[in-house]
Amino acid sequence: MTQQLPEYAIIVAGGSGTRMQHDLPKQFIEVAGKPILMHTIERFYKYNSAVRLIVVLPQEQLTSWRELCRKHSFKLFHMTVAGGTTRFGSVKNGLDAVMGDGLIAVHDGVRPFVDVETIKGAYEAAAKYGSAVVAVPPKDSIRELTGEGSRAVPRAKYKMVQTPQVFQASILRKAYEQSEQEYFTDDASVVESIGQPITLVEGSYRNIKITTPEDLILAEAFATTD
Amino acid sequence: MTQQLPEYAIIVAGGSGTRMQHDLPKQFIEVAGKPILMHTIERFYKYNSAVRLIVVLPQEQLTSWRELCRKHSFKLFHMTVAGGTTRFGSVKNGLDAVMGDGLIAVHDGVRPFVDVETIKGAYEAAAKYGSAVVAVPPKDSIRELTGEGSRAVPRAKYKMVQTPQVFQASILRKAYEQSEQEYFTDDASVVESIGQPITLVEGSYRNIKITTPEDLILAEAFATTD
Repeated sequence: MTQQLPEYAIIVAGGSGTRMQHDLPKQFIEVAGKPILMHTIERFYKYNSAVRLIVVLPQEQLTSWRELCRKHSFKLFHMTVAGGTTRFGSVKNGLDAVMGDGLIAVHDGVRPFVDVETIKGAYEAAAKYGSAVVAVPPKDSIRELTGEGSRAVPRAKYKMVQTPQVFQASILRKAYEQSEQEYFTDDASVVESIGQPITLVEGSYRNIKITTPEDLILAEAFATTD
Repeated sequence: MTQQLPEYAIIVAGGSGTRMQHDLPKQFIEVAGKPILMHTIERFYKYNSAVRLIVVLPQEQLTSWRELCRKHSFKLFHMTVAGGTTRFGSVKNGLDAVMGDGLIAVHDGVRPFVDVETIKGAYEAAAKYGSAVVAVPPKDSIRELTGEGSRAVPRAKYKMVQTPQVFQASILRKAYEQSEQEYFTDDASVVESIGQPITLVEGSYRNIKITTPEDLILAEAFATTD
């Protein structure tokens, strides 16, 4: 398989501001003077100026997103799609916008610090193996909850999953034909459940998902030291 | 069991600067104008001004630490002990300094943002149950590495372990009589291997272990917004 396949990215931005203790949806919070989601989109364009970008947002945020783009003179081309009630539903809606063959990255809208090298590595591995998921070793020890308590598990045996998660279009489409299961926490788990192996690609500790107020502090610091 | 037991804290600071890409050992790097290790010690004194503090440092850093304390007019009382070649050895050396009964917290020297409430919760749970370990839910999806590849595991079943890890002195002492095993990545795993159950206590995402250059950026931001 060559690298001639068109490259898509579905950027999922379904968040509200609840865990962030913020009145704005977290993808719209400004970091270094610009909504987080714009930083994320820029990373994919930096990797490939021909990327085909689909941004999935809650229906009720589509108008304010358009206004934000106008206000910030944000010109990078992207399609917007209304999300579903769950992440699974949102990716599925984004996927409906991809018709032909190609490689599809699914990426969290609030991971604005993903490196170009990481994106590249994930698309390349997916072209070769069908699916590629970015992950890093855990920094902390891990305990597994058991029926009565918990037990130590060998940390070296685990990886913390990030995005992008990149798949050949046909594989991702087939995986999303299933009905949703509770254990689908990311696209790798969806794809895996149709028997497709997942290739892991090395991520970076900078590629944080902005989820809590602590992350926002770090994001501001990253953005200004980049 | 009442709260009359003396409270000890063994602060383990065995790090070098390698992963940090820094010429100073990471515990000596300044955050908000003061070595990280001093911030950490202050947290325990803020919790309990009568805490009995043992700081474990590599032999070759003991002199420079004393100089740093002088330079920063750092007066909080603490005993210093030379570390071993591994974390296990270092905790063991720290433990030798505790003679009587009591509750012993083991804490990473480079976790300077632990909340007083977290410390309190851990000592209280250890007084009641024998051992208490601070942990938080993982923010990311988790994959387990298998023989050939990897598989998604249910994230809700895992906890990321932090410190402090607090134990009744007799339990910790007995656990450290064992010989060291490769799977001892923290004190909970050591104590657990003598058949002692571990109680988990809710931690905080602010309680980061400063390990990589990214963490240092976050630390500086935390310290100035505290």
